[in-house]
Amino acid sequence: GDDYYMRLALQMAEAAVGQTEINPNVGCVVVKEGRIVGLGAHLQRGMAHAEVHALNMAGEQARDATVYVTLEPCSHHGRTPPCADRLIRERVARVVVAATDPNPQVAGRGIARLREHGIAVTTGVLEHEARRLIEPFAKYMSTGRPYVTLKTASTLDGKIASATGDSKWITGESARAFVHTLRHRHHAIMAGIGTVLEDDPQLNTRLPVPGLHPVRIIVDSQLRLPPSSRVVQDRSARTVVLASDQAPAEKQAELERLGVEVLRCGEGPRVDLAKAMDALGRMEIGSILLEGGGRLNGSMLEQQLIDYIYLFFAPKLIGGNGPGSFDFSGFARMHDAIRLEQLTCTAFGTDFCISGKPIYGNL
Amino acid sequence: GDDYYMRLALQMAEAAVGQTEINPNVGCVVVKEGRIVGLGAHLQRGMAHAEVHALNMAGEQARDATVYVTLEPCSHHGRTPPCADRLIRERVARVVVAATDPNPQVAGRGIARLREHGIAVTTGVLEHEARRLIEPFAKYMSTGRPYVTLKTASTLDGKIASATGDSKWITGESARAFVHTLRHRHHAIMAGIGTVLEDDPQLNTRLPVPGLHPVRIIVDSQLRLPPSSRVVQDRSARTVVLASDQAPAEKQAELERLGVEVLRCGEGPRVDLAKAMDALGRMEIGSILLEGGGRLNGSMLEQQLIDYIYLFFAPKLIGGNGPGSFDFSGFARMHDAIRLEQLTCTAFGTDFCISGKPIYGNL
Amino acid sequence: GDDYYMRLALQMAEAAVGQTEINPNVGCVVVKEGRIVGLGAHLQRGMAHAEVHALNMAGEQARDATVYVTLEPCSHHGRTPPCADRLIRERVARVVVAATDPNPQVAGRGIARLREHGIAVTTGVLEHEARRLIEPFAKYMSTGRPYVTLKTASTLDGKIASATGDSKWITGESARAFVHTLRHRHHAIMAGIGTVLEDDPQLNTRLPVPGLHPVRIIVDSQLRLPPSSRVVQDRSARTVVLASDQAPAEKQAELERLGVEVLRCGEGPRVDLAKAMDALGRMEIGSILLEGGGRLNGSMLEQQLIDYIYLFFAPKLIGGNGPGSFDFSGFARMHDAIRLEQLTCTAFGTDFCISGKPIYGNL
Amino acid sequence: GDDYYMRLALQMAEAAVGQTEINPNVGCVVVKEGRIVGLGAHLQRGMAHAEVHALNMAGEQARDATVYVTLEPCSHHGRTPPCADRLIRERVARVVVAATDPNPQVAGRGIARLREHGIAVTTGVLEHEARRLIEPFAKYMSTGRPYVTLKTASTLDGKIASATGDSKWITGESARAFVHTLRHRHHAIMAGIGTVLEDDPQLNTRLPVPGLHPVRIIVDSQLRLPPSSRVVQDRSARTVVLASDQAPAEKQAELERLGVEVLRCGEGPRVDLAKAMDALGRMEIGSILLEGGGRLNGSMLEQQLIDYIYLFFAPKLIGGNGPGSFDFSGFARMHDAIRLEQLTCTAFGTDFCISGKPIYGNL
Ligand SMILES: [Zn+2]
Ligand SMILES: [Zn+2]
Ligand SMILES: [Zn+2]
Ligand SMILES: [Zn+2]
Repeated sequence: GDDYYMRLALQMAEAAVGQTEINPNVGCVVVKEGRIVGLGAHLQRGMAHAEVHALNMAGEQARDATVYVTLEPCSHHGRTPPCADRLIRERVARVVVAATDPNPQVAGRGIARLREHGIAVTTGVLEHEARRLIEPFAKYMSTGRPYVTLKTASTLDGKIASATGDSKWITGESARAFVHTLRHRHHAIMAGIGTVLEDDPQLNTRLPVPGLHPVRIIVDSQLRLPPSSRVVQDRSARTVVLASDQAPAEKQAELERLGVEVLRCGEGPRVDLAKAMDALGRMEIGSILLEGGGRLNGSMLEQQLIDYIYLFFAPKLIGGNGPGSFDFSGFARMHDAIRLEQLTCTAFGTDFCISGKPIYGNL
Repeated sequence: GDDYYMRLALQMAEAAVGQTEINPNVGCVVVKEGRIVGLGAHLQRGMAHAEVHALNMAGEQARDATVYVTLEPCSHHGRTPPCADRLIRERVARVVVAATDPNPQVAGRGIARLREHGIAVTTGVLEHEARRLIEPFAKYMSTGRPYVTLKTASTLDGKIASATGDSKWITGESARAFVHTLRHRHHAIMAGIGTVLEDDPQLNTRLPVPGLHPVRIIVDSQLRLPPSSRVVQDRSARTVVLASDQAPAEKQAELERLGVEVLRCGEGPRVDLAKAMDALGRMEIGSILLEGGGRLNGSMLEQQLIDYIYLFFAPKLIGGNGPGSFDFSGFARMHDAIRLEQLTCTAFGTDFCISGKPIYGNL
Repeated sequence: GDDYYMRLALQMAEAAVGQTEINPNVGCVVVKEGRIVGLGAHLQRGMAHAEVHALNMAGEQARDATVYVTLEPCSHHGRTPPCADRLIRERVARVVVAATDPNPQVAGRGIARLREHGIAVTTGVLEHEARRLIEPFAKYMSTGRPYVTLKTASTLDGKIASATGDSKWITGESARAFVHTLRHRHHAIMAGIGTVLEDDPQLNTRLPVPGLHPVRIIVDSQLRLPPSSRVVQDRSARTVVLASDQAPAEKQAELERLGVEVLRCGEGPRVDLAKAMDALGRMEIGSILLEGGGRLNGSMLEQQLIDYIYLFFAPKLIGGNGPGSFDFSGFARMHDAIRLEQLTCTAFGTDFCISGKPIYGNL
Repeated sequence: GDDYYMRLALQMAEAAVGQTEINPNVGCVVVKEGRIVGLGAHLQRGMAHAEVHALNMAGEQARDATVYVTLEPCSHHGRTPPCADRLIRERVARVVVAATDPNPQVAGRGIARLREHGIAVTTGVLEHEARRLIEPFAKYMSTGRPYVTLKTASTLDGKIASATGDSKWITGESARAFVHTLRHRHHAIMAGIGTVLEDDPQLNTRLPVPGLHPVRIIVDSQLRLPPSSRVVQDRSARTVVLASDQAPAEKQAELERLGVEVLRCGEGPRVDLAKAMDALGRMEIGSILLEGGGRLNGSMLEQQLIDYIYLFFAPKLIGGNGPGSFDFSGFARMHDAIRLEQLTCTAFGTDFCISGKPIYGNL
């Protein structure tokens, strides 16, 4: 039934996660008399929407066809003309939609426009799966801020390093490979200046096949970032530094000469993270993988800026007073703690990963 | 890694099973710098190959890209120009292939041609899955005969009808829905004249969304097919009748006037099924779903013309001397029986289905 | 909780299936202050009940203990004194019961008796599991007839032998081993004279460790059983022959001299199977594993004398007009067929086994 | 086969875990001619061994029977006469043993004795399962120290309490119920004086049915234990306090007057935990469930005194600088951390539990 083709559309949309910036991941299948005649997905911001690719492939067979699309076709002129108009022009017979537009101001308009032109529209097919796929887009649309996924890896006693700072390697290869996939699936990677000063990481994706290099975001209130660090020297990806207004202007100038973008967020001694999210949203960063130390993770969590969490645990007990994954003032009562919902437990070699959505009910 | 993109290519190829006639099901994904830039599948015989659709979608981004394709690109001029040449012209950097061409006379030529032009080629990625997908194509290429899947449904005591002929309904809705999916996935449906005379079936696909109507093949040695039967009257699909040379010529003429194609296969009183398979192959029928009575199923099996079997069992005991699924002279020794391998057991509601490949070792 | 100890009691009861003749399988655990102090199961008809074994093991610790027993303690004098009285005498504090007595004339009496003497009684703990365990006992109590389990093994085309009679070996070792376990778990094995004449089987259990030898029951209307056959010559188990009144008296005398018991059931030319079940019940046969040919299986089924069915299927197609598992006149309409419920599918090597309860709704 | 009866013996042995003090858990099944005739388990230290219970139940049927026992029968006079002699006297035919005696000085003697008297002995049946069951006994035999299982429950950020000390309730009901089962399965429960001063716990088992009350062990170097605390006032279980030699003698006298046992372990200001384990071993404590705070857990771990670990995680992030599950100086290099092996992940409601054996390779 309809599920069959919508699932294929979702598979194509899912495969392109990480490559559409602030745009949603959308897939489209065109079916004519029981035959698939067009396939498409939105592949790059500013380029053709999923429907356009699929209708191009279908050619003349689009006429009287049924079009399966995971997100309601757009009805407004953006970087590309509205897909609803294209569908009307192609004289398709029916459009099957998984999820309506998450932007409440636009939701339903595309569908209404199709119906006005006599095209039958079915909605709600595999809606749940489609909604999960566009959660980052939905958040960006409704708040103007990027969707933030936190990833951390610790021992079973919650340490991300030994007392002397050794953190190589907490988790094994299988977990680390998955982290590179996570990076590929986000628009940006965010880390604190502490991590940069200690490890001088490259903060890019190292997949068996080349991945997109996400934007690197460094939280660096006082602009301590050394010009010699890899995230400055390596030009394969943009580097954005978040600084407080108090940071020295000459350091900003020096970094900018080296191609680094500096974003001032907040007057205090430390970066105002909520303002930073607004600023990153204005820069059209749609999703961020946060790989911070305990302080940055804790601050982001405290300000409810995190949308999803992956906690990797290695089967080790390290002891000592090394740092943990989350450093924030916290709650007096256990009952008020942040809860994780829709919990999933996945094994990666001898490590395992707990993931879920934080619920900030009692902050 | 490479598996990630090849799996997407296989999903698209798989989705188009049943719509490419004698052509193989092939999927293609073009990836440039970690970004999917093209998607394609072979969707219809005589139309663009998977690579062409995907390269069209990729446009200028094909240059220096990696191309994942489930089957070795063709290097000969068929109904469309060779894909290997197109890949060379687009100056892609690398081609990843799941399965080489099953035609031994052509196997490896496409890959060699790419390499001659400096394109890196990786083979064997998800090869097993890709080989299963093109089994019907491989058989057709090597034998000139269609790939035959037998489907039958019986009670637990092996009856396909009661002693008085009642066969409605052995299996439940869920199993019957799957049979319509099976029909959609084959180029033709084959039944015996007995079934037509008794049930006057339409032999088409009744899916929740319209499916392709496979060619109907009726085994009717003496041309007893009534002109008033549904398979004659309903013109939504081709109907081919297999008859013996002994069948009356005037009946053939009458049926042909009604649009039915008649194929003479064999001089004896009954259709020579092996010759029939050759003839159907020459008609470019690539795959057949056999839904025969016991006699036709048994004859096909006896002549080793069946490539895959689905046996549906309803949880019933009907008794009586009604017909069974297989009526053939059989083997004297249990040890010589046809075995089914790669057995799978799947539940459909309260029915279940055993499927596997017949092994004719001891015939 | 209570489940913990009752599960252990059920495990012990289950382990003794096949060794209590017409008596139920019962397990018992005595717990005193959080410590198991007694374990018992009913192990042999005429010997101690489960409660007695467990209380004997507990000794003085039975006082004020909690007693977990899978079946309501008996309150009547049978071959052993009533267990309810023993529990009262031991001054246990509480009795936990899984299933009440299936005999409606006795059900609840044991529990009432305990309560009258101030013992707390909890019922219904793991009741479902306990009821399944005593199904044969429940049937025997309510009908006076043995519980009959049918076992058959055929090819996928429903044949139990080739056209020439070869039936060695349809199923593989794993399935055959399970059949010997099934034999061990029944009070008697039943076969037709046809099977005896053809295969001269021993009809005993061949387990890796010695099993009990069930009573052998041969359905032999005309007393054709050869004195030289194994089931006569081998004295390791009782052999009972069911014959019609028309069978020759001298043959009966000859068999009886050889130790065979002959039971006359019915005046017609063939054994009246319903009467035979009554007679076997009067002989205190509690459960039978039926391993008949098609005719015997069919007649038993037609007369609704079968309580559970195991159908083994070997992944083979043998063809020919060999016999099937069920030979009976059957039903005109598919809708009236006997249904199997609570279906289970289990793999045994490359064979598989479908088992379930026959529902005779429409006979 | 032999597995069938040994599995039943193991089930009975397993059911009695927690009630045999320093004695091993052993089960026994006696089988005569395919019929179970005796069942037994070791139920209490000083009382009958498993073989004795089972042979008592079997009575005269023990002669020529096969005896399945999960641990090699004893051949020395302990609190009860040697089981090997009893088996010889009963003239059993065969003994099947799962695991040989873990005490290397005794291992094989029982088996040799049986064989000398013409009894066939089979070993190694379900040996792995049997060895796991007697791990605590094996450790006690070889080291003279109790087997220690650590249990802790924390948030996902590794806290066992909020910064203000709130720890009620980290985990949900399902996890807490399992902890009471764990307590029941150990000979003693061990906690630190900090836990007693803060929470004044009762440290007993609260199971739906009454459980044995394990010995309570309080690590209290300076004998700060208040006479009014529950572990002193509640006399349902023994309470043992571990103190340093430096603790005031008058406090010891006061506690002893209240029925508390005081054990001096070590001259320093803090209890010498390794010496304490020796002392507890001399007191014939066979197994301990450690439910300490971070300091006690860490010290025990550091000294390699822990044999198994259960880590419960609640799906919460509490933040703050509350205590963690393990407080010890730890390792400089991640590579040297204690690893957990044979890891298992089990869900308890929305909590989950990681359990495994610590491997102290690099200390
Ligand atoms: Zn659009
Ligand atoms: Zn091609
Ligand atoms: Zn009783
Ligand atoms: Zn002993």
